[in-house]
Amino acid sequence: MRHDTGDHTLNETGEAGIIQRIQHQGVSGPASHVKKGIGDDCAVLETEGASALLVTTDTLIEGIHFTDQTLSPEALGWKALAVNVSDIAAMGGTPKTAFLSLGLKGETKVQFLDAFLAGFKALSEKTGVVLAGGDTVESPSCAVVTVTLLGECSKERVVYRSGTEVGDHIWVTGRLGDAAGGLFLLKEKGGPTPPEYASLILAHQKPMPPFELGKALGEAGLAHAMIDLSDGVAKDLGHICEQSGVGALLQGSSVPMSDPLKKLADQVPHPALGWALQGGEDYELLFTASPAEEPRILSLSAKVSDGGATRIGKIIDDSGLWVDTPEGRNLLESHGFLHFSK
Amino acid sequence: MRHDTGDHTLNETGEAGIIQRIQHQGVSGPASHVKKGIGDDCAVLETEGASALLVTTDTLIEGIHFTDQTLSPEALGWKALAVNVSDIAAMGGTPKTAFLSLGLKGETKVQFLDAFLAGFKALSEKTGVVLAGGDTVESPSCAVVTVTLLGECSKERVVYRSGTEVGDHIWVTGRLGDAAGGLFLLKEKGGPTPPEYASLILAHQKPMPPFELGKALGEAGLAHAMIDLSDGVAKDLGHICEQSGVGALLQGSSVPMSDPLKKLADQVPHPALGWALQGGEDYELLFTASPAEEPRILSLSAKVSDGGATRIGKIIDDSGLWVDTPEGRNLLESHGFLHFSK
Repeated sequence: MRHDTGDHTLNETGEAGIIQRIQHQGVSGPASHVKKGIGDDCAVLETEGASALLVTTDTLIEGIHFTDQTLSPEALGWKALAVNVSDIAAMGGTPKTAFLSLGLKGETKVQFLDAFLAGFKALSEKTGVVLAGGDTVESPSCAVVTVTLLGECSKERVVYRSGTEVGDHIWVTGRLGDAAGGLFLLKEKGGPTPPEYASLILAHQKPMPPFELGKALGEAGLAHAMIDLSDGVAKDLGHICEQSGVGALLQGSSVPMSDPLKKLADQVPHPALGWALQGGEDYELLFTASPAEEPRILSLSAKVSDGGATRIGKIIDDSGLWVDTPEGRNLLESHGFLHFSK
Repeated sequence: MRHDTGDHTLNETGEAGIIQRIQHQGVSGPASHVKKGIGDDCAVLETEGASALLVTTDTLIEGIHFTDQTLSPEALGWKALAVNVSDIAAMGGTPKTAFLSLGLKGETKVQFLDAFLAGFKALSEKTGVVLAGGDTVESPSCAVVTVTLLGECSKERVVYRSGTEVGDHIWVTGRLGDAAGGLFLLKEKGGPTPPEYASLILAHQKPMPPFELGKALGEAGLAHAMIDLSDGVAKDLGHICEQSGVGALLQGSSVPMSDPLKKLADQVPHPALGWALQGGEDYELLFTASPAEEPRILSLSAKVSDGGATRIGKIIDDSGLWVDTPEGRNLLESHGFLHFSK
């Protein structure tokens, strides 16, 4: 962190600079009951029992994270919870208790609230999450939704972003890039979306984090490191590599992508692999594991309802993220979504 | 709740209507680990240990809860935490772990962030609270701060809004109305505030919830019911009375008010008792207790550093909140701050 007078803007500092500033000002610790504070998908708090308490919070703001063009009120309710479920899953935990802070304009119709709550409820029922409190306030100009989600995980089984080793395989769940393709359609294309692309729209609007697989991976002790794919593989895998001082080599041909995404990519045209590795908002999981565990991972992944893991590369004793494509080996640049981009 | 098509606005429904809507849509419960969900100062969650987990969340939005005229960045950081500490105190608990979600405009100066963090840190050090995570996002048009605060309380000693009995004495901590007087000065008066009113400004900008007294009252089992004074006595005592189906009779002459507030009230003029009972944002505690406990309450209140409790009335077997003044007995109307006011 620069020691300066602060006479520059948050845009110039960037999100990482802001977080550094919070950490370095000593606002955030230390404390005996905080096993992990800022710097992972969730905070990990000690409890008297056998489980650690996991806590995560995420804010969605109209005009930044969504518009009425990209998310219906119902999808907003679903997604506000989903992005937090994803963080709990990335620690290998079980999501349990949600708190909802909702800022809406006074002229908002009650229909909007009802649809929002229906979307929130639909995912909370699927994930076993209970809403236990929150705050409702008037917002002067844009809708603001903050969800704080508490979860639990056996103390010995919490999976962090750190802990990966050279030679580990890199795995991802689901198919990547659908959410980015969906967002492209919602923002760039006018008029109704062809039905063949409905799954892309759905991936952006109502992501379904693989919380059962995340939990199962944690319980089985199979993942060395794990993170949720909110900002894209390039940025999120970057976090994992930074924390262990390693690099990664991906096989472009192994990255799981859906047929509708490939079709859209051909049509636009836009590199499908760009959406898959740099697009963000997939809310799938990326984890690393010992190569010896491949059979157990595939077996586990076949057993849970939201399973489906694909090996896409390996951790290397080098810096940087590299991807092999038919055109050669390329440095994977972090074009993931940046808040307060420089 | 009206069963309708939702074709009216949140302003028309009001905050209470919104909360009812959330509760009645079944988004919020039930669950075995949630001992108390929506409807008190904090949610109360079961744990494996001897303590219950308390959780509260509050959002402050620029243009609604504050402007750059009413709160400095440093005061905003302090207050965003204070309003949550107040909720933990009102359950008789100990504040422990905070999560900060901060939405700021991209053109905000880093100086603003630094000052905000300094204010947040100052109160977190006083209260023993640790910041363990959060979210930083860009906000297009206004600053938005959500703090979620976790605390703990011995399971047997949690104090709820319910549980008051006819004949109970009604107590408040501190002096009431200073924050309302301070807000009046900040909003209505141009130019610098006379030094004699500095304590009123401070009460609005940097409230200091009596968290030691709140905890001590809980531990001693002295309070039948407790609530924090965020919206004013009229509204907050109303919540306590509603939950037990009782009423209250206050002695206007017993309500603790500071000399600066009385002086300002004379000068404006404005009824000082109006600010004290209907003003809001004092972040003091209101609690009820058996008349037999008066000596123990006074003794306890003298022992803790932030103590100072005053008996202002009693719970009656009647509906409504009444206040005796030299002009006679008046119904105390709830002019507390209403979000989404009808």
